[in-house]
Amino acid sequence: MSPKSLFSFSLTALSCTAGLAAANPLREQALELFQPLPSTVPAVKDNPITPEKIDLGKALFFDPRMSASGVFSCNSCHNLATGGDDNLETSIGHGWQKGPRNAPTVLNAVFNAAQFWDGRAPDLAEQAKGPVQAGVEMANTPGQVVATLNSMPEYVAWFQAAFPDQPDPVSFDSFAKAIEAYEATLITPAPFDAWLNGDDAALSGEQKQGLSLFIDAGCASCHGGVNLGGQDYYPFGLVETPDAEVLPSGDKGRFAVTATEDDEYVFRAAPLRNIAVTAPYFHSGKVWELEAAVSIMASSQLGADLSEEETAAITAFLHSLTGEVPQVVYPVLPAETSGTPRPDGAVQR
Amino acid sequence: MSPKSLFSFSLTALSCTAGLAAANPLREQALELFQPLPSTVPAVKDNPITPEKIDLGKALFFDPRMSASGVFSCNSCHNLATGGDDNLETSIGHGWQKGPRNAPTVLNAVFNAAQFWDGRAPDLAEQAKGPVQAGVEMANTPGQVVATLNSMPEYVAWFQAAFPDQPDPVSFDSFAKAIEAYEATLITPAPFDAWLNGDDAALSGEQKQGLSLFIDAGCASCHGGVNLGGQDYYPFGLVETPDAEVLPSGDKGRFAVTATEDDEYVFRAAPLRNIAVTAPYFHSGKVWELEAAVSIMASSQLGADLSEEETAAITAFLHSLTGEVPQVVYPVLPAETSGTPRPDGAVQR
Repeated sequence: MSPKSLFSFSLTALSCTAGLAAANPLREQALELFQPLPSTVPAVKDNPITPEKIDLGKALFFDPRMSASGVFSCNSCHNLATGGDDNLETSIGHGWQKGPRNAPTVLNAVFNAAQFWDGRAPDLAEQAKGPVQAGVEMANTPGQVVATLNSMPEYVAWFQAAFPDQPDPVSFDSFAKAIEAYEATLITPAPFDAWLNGDDAALSGEQKQGLSLFIDAGCASCHGGVNLGGQDYYPFGLVETPDAEVLPSGDKGRFAVTATEDDEYVFRAAPLRNIAVTAPYFHSGKVWELEAAVSIMASSQLGADLSEEETAAITAFLHSLTGEVPQVVYPVLPAETSGTPRPDGAVQR
Repeated sequence: MSPKSLFSFSLTALSCTAGLAAANPLREQALELFQPLPSTVPAVKDNPITPEKIDLGKALFFDPRMSASGVFSCNSCHNLATGGDDNLETSIGHGWQKGPRNAPTVLNAVFNAAQFWDGRAPDLAEQAKGPVQAGVEMANTPGQVVATLNSMPEYVAWFQAAFPDQPDPVSFDSFAKAIEAYEATLITPAPFDAWLNGDDAALSGEQKQGLSLFIDAGCASCHGGVNLGGQDYYPFGLVETPDAEVLPSGDKGRFAVTATEDDEYVFRAAPLRNIAVTAPYFHSGKVWELEAAVSIMASSQLGADLSEEETAAITAFLHSLTGEVPQVVYPVLPAETSGTPRPDGAVQR
């Protein structure tokens, strides 16, 4: 163990006592800090979820014609095949431009208190409107999205079925709400949920040690709740400023949203579900190894110098947050018509 | 009807006689020229198809990490949600470069005699190796593809299951054969198949008129067989050279493959299944309306000046080739490891 180790017991001693009898106190402690995923799709504020809305939202989520170029869909950067993100430092978008921050996973995002690294969108519907319009991402406009959708009779019918009470069902707001409804279904129950729900065998001994360390070291103070994060904002580099590559000085985080000095280099605590399959890490996307990310967090946020064994145990615990992605039947989308705006890959500089 | 009309009967007269009694001679004529899709996945030369190979091929088909940048998968340009192609004039690839020719649909491609607009790949396995390596598409190398796959233990296990007799199962050849096996399953039975198989009601009266015109005008001479095309090579502009935008002088088609003067501006006859959902048309991708494409084909290849009604009827028939895409469960792909080559969007000029 490292000289700075936070714990007076050895990992070996813990592993001898972490059997069934010792499991309950840890679970009781854990249940005060975390919640298992619910067994049903959560209710979403001001957006009653219906099967029609989910189906429409899925089509929109996978439709590359929502981008100006016809190249990118929501799924391009939040790929359900690869952990709900794109495995890139920062996303590549319209005109091969690089986005400013690492794309967070869409999986379980409905449980975050706010969306984006700086929390600038209060919900997934608001979030969905961002990348569609961002010049470096999908580079489209609300008007063109609505024109595209209105040009395809199947889409119009699907919007009517999903928003039966709207006089004008095809709107940018409804587009966003349908995507939010679909994304609310993207929930991934993990071994950690099974363990929280009472299945002692769902976590290995090392994972339980890691959980214990995760709590005792203080990680859970920011990474709590159902998503182990995503609930509140904290300065990155609370105790020790990380490398400039990891925390570039040009990106002041939430300061851009609040213009409050206290919010300089403040970010939403990353939700940790599926973290093991969503490298690279941090808003800068500069760290590819989960162990390294754990070490950086420990030193920058807690002033802790974890031993290799401790880092390994916490990393093992984080692997227990990799959940089962719901089965997604790939949609067959409506065909364009003569009225559909044509794809345009030109870059406005 | 136009002065140059090929037919002495009026469409109105035909529609009066195109009932059940008259259906059989047309079907008999059609069955000499076309074949319905088989009810099972076809055998593929030198590539026995197994469930393990199909599953692996599906994963590879959807995996953007097969491209150097991590942005493009096979499905990016051959999107199963949008007719098996990308709805672009020519595809946008690595570094936002534009490909030279319109991406053909992957649906039913297993039935083409050869792949690409110039037929330069004899089969789908050979085809699959092309875009992965093309600098303007996925810009990867066989070595990097194999290294990427070998870095993920699940992929190695899947290759072992799919190629149990290979001493070194993860190879670029096996990669291509697995994709070929998956693509062989992408078969889309259409109303035209139902009609060929004896269901008189599967085509409308106008569609039957269109089929009759399609045969009598000579379209079926090149667009025959199970895919209504994709079987042989013909000069584009046989009778009349189309506009330079549609047939750009710089792309000499099959000449680039054979270096034979007779092959200048010769292309594989486009397979017409799902043509109504795979605009824009021709290798140049410059024509967005199916009616316009039909007119251009009639004048350039047959010297025929179709009336609006004739064009509409043939177009209606072509809509009967839009088939049902098999249900695709979106894959969940293996996560990268520390050994996985990192995505690189840099463009080598």
